[in-house]
Amino acid sequence: MRTAAYTGNHAIEISETEASAPGHGEVQIAVAYTGLCGTDLHILHGNMDARVTTPLTFGHEMSGTISAVGDGVTEWKTGDHVTVMPLEWDGTCPACIAGSSHICQNLVFVGIDSPGSLQERWNVSADLLVAVPDDLSLENAALAEPVAVAVHDVRRSELKAGDHVVVLGGGPIGVLIASVARSEGAIVAVSEPEPQRREQIARLGFETIDPREVDAAEWVTAWTDGAGADVVFEVSGAPAAVLAATGLAKVRGTIVVVAIHPTPREIDLQRVFWRELRILGARVYQRTDFERAIELLRDGTIPVDEVISKIVPLDQISDGVSDLENGRALKVLVEIGGAA
Amino acid sequence: MRTAAYTGNHAIEISETEASAPGHGEVQIAVAYTGLCGTDLHILHGNMDARVTTPLTFGHEMSGTISAVGDGVTEWKTGDHVTVMPLEWDGTCPACIAGSSHICQNLVFVGIDSPGSLQERWNVSADLLVAVPDDLSLENAALAEPVAVAVHDVRRSELKAGDHVVVLGGGPIGVLIASVARSEGAIVAVSEPEPQRREQIARLGFETIDPREVDAAEWVTAWTDGAGADVVFEVSGAPAAVLAATGLAKVRGTIVVVAIHPTPREIDLQRVFWRELRILGARVYQRTDFERAIELLRDGTIPVDEVISKIVPLDQISDGVSDLENGRALKVLVEIGGAA
Ligand SMILES: [Zn+2]
Ligand SMILES: [Zn+2]
Repeated sequence: MRTAAYTGNHAIEISETEASAPGHGEVQIAVAYTGLCGTDLHILHGNMDARVTTPLTFGHEMSGTISAVGDGVTEWKTGDHVTVMPLEWDGTCPACIAGSSHICQNLVFVGIDSPGSLQERWNVSADLLVAVPDDLSLENAALAEPVAVAVHDVRRSELKAGDHVVVLGGGPIGVLIASVARSEGAIVAVSEPEPQRREQIARLGFETIDPREVDAAEWVTAWTDGAGADVVFEVSGAPAAVLAATGLAKVRGTIVVVAIHPTPREIDLQRVFWRELRILGARVYQRTDFERAIELLRDGTIPVDEVISKIVPLDQISDGVSDLENGRALKVLVEIGGAA
Repeated sequence: MRTAAYTGNHAIEISETEASAPGHGEVQIAVAYTGLCGTDLHILHGNMDARVTTPLTFGHEMSGTISAVGDGVTEWKTGDHVTVMPLEWDGTCPACIAGSSHICQNLVFVGIDSPGSLQERWNVSADLLVAVPDDLSLENAALAEPVAVAVHDVRRSELKAGDHVVVLGGGPIGVLIASVARSEGAIVAVSEPEPQRREQIARLGFETIDPREVDAAEWVTAWTDGAGADVVFEVSGAPAAVLAATGLAKVRGTIVVVAIHPTPREIDLQRVFWRELRILGARVYQRTDFERAIELLRDGTIPVDEVISKIVPLDQISDGVSDLENGRALKVLVEIGGAA
């Protein structure tokens, strides 16, 4: 079988190896598609070299078909369509005991801390499987993981129908958050400097803000009759967006920190104090978010055709990576090819 | 009657004026005590010159006795002991309509935006009065306003009995928050660099941390068996404390921003994201907080003897200000002298 691995220094190597049988409690999945995301780029760019062990078979957004079932697995059978919730927790740390196992203090993120789905036959614990119904294509099911992120972010915000929501950053996660928020009844605007992305977002029916042309705080104040936004999602990762975010939120409004900010950022704490704002971190997802993501992919809430920019075969993975690096693509899927 | 006013450029002028009768809906209060706080120092230091109109009779922490009752006031009578909740809202802005009138978008803070209590006879709207029971001394009742701040901060944190709480900054509000949190069943540690304050806080029975000597994150991790603090109150106003605060909180822990931060501060958003932290602004108080403050002053929860460092007569107000500026005093009361 073919496997793609990060071997250090921006390099991806595709090699031919022998597929192994699934172990006790595992299934073997014939991977159909693996999506590439910002974290994968971070790995390839060497930003996570301190964390990962090379060669690393990465990839954590996927769909596939069970091709073999290991000992002790009773709830799954060969031929089942599945996706994987790529989190393994210890169940014993204070976070797990308090009910937040999805952000376990010793969390193993599959595809970063252990081998991922960029391989034709992937053995994973059956505990991580999430069923993909027959009427959802494997192509679209490969979006379950990023959609689950968006579902989790929206759930964490506690937004209500009729709320005014601003999404800072119109990349794939921003578009997914906007879509999920709208499905909950929110009125959504997306701030995105890139004109092509902004046009695409407008085509999806969202209000758009060009933060380079418009004073976003003035725009949001007018849009909300002087109140400010109920919820602001910071998805851009940009220092300027973080500094501006507090100026967009209403009294007792919520700012959800979704993006990765590798270094400390300046925040207007005077505004946080003055308006009694709430800033919430939101990371990964819980099983309920993953299951909801499958539903939203199935019922047409997620604009999959706009989100999936390109599908490349495994041996052209580097082209897909380039498209993401250049900002030309929103989401790239790698077709692994493995019908079971 | 005598009045103290900020006249600009660090100056306080005490002048003799004629007391006026209370207007419709007002009462006249013979002010007994007025406490001085950090905001008063900000006014005197000229930091709020853009906001205040001089000469400004400042002062917003007070107690007194009603000396005259204006037309239309039926619920109060001469001789009643009272304190004042110094907030006036418009009732019409989006914040008021949403139920957050205490942080009205057009809030008038009495003693900053309108004349305060550093005068022998003070006319205020009867709507702002809070009753002081006979068994609470007017001296101690003058602490109602800062205690209400602490009650509001603790209520906003949603802390529960048994929670581990860290208070960053052992000034008057820090000590009051620690006291209120303990009365709710929390286990409290206070981080304070000043040795004299730290000793005083230890005498009150709180754990203390010297942030210059101890790695606070390590200390809190050990103190909480590896979990981190449930709630961190940022009361210091120090940039280093803000940056450190996120490292003290448990997964899904809460950081309450109580201090004034006049310029944007660096925050470790990676930690906010990683642990799904919650940062909450907390400002002033609601009526329920003021009423609870009176109860806590009455039942001995608040260590009034440790908090009130000094009482000065009105003509020695500058001495009291100096003691606060030098950090020698926690809380200074000005005795206005007006028995009704
Ligand atoms: Zn755990
Ligand atoms: Zn208002």
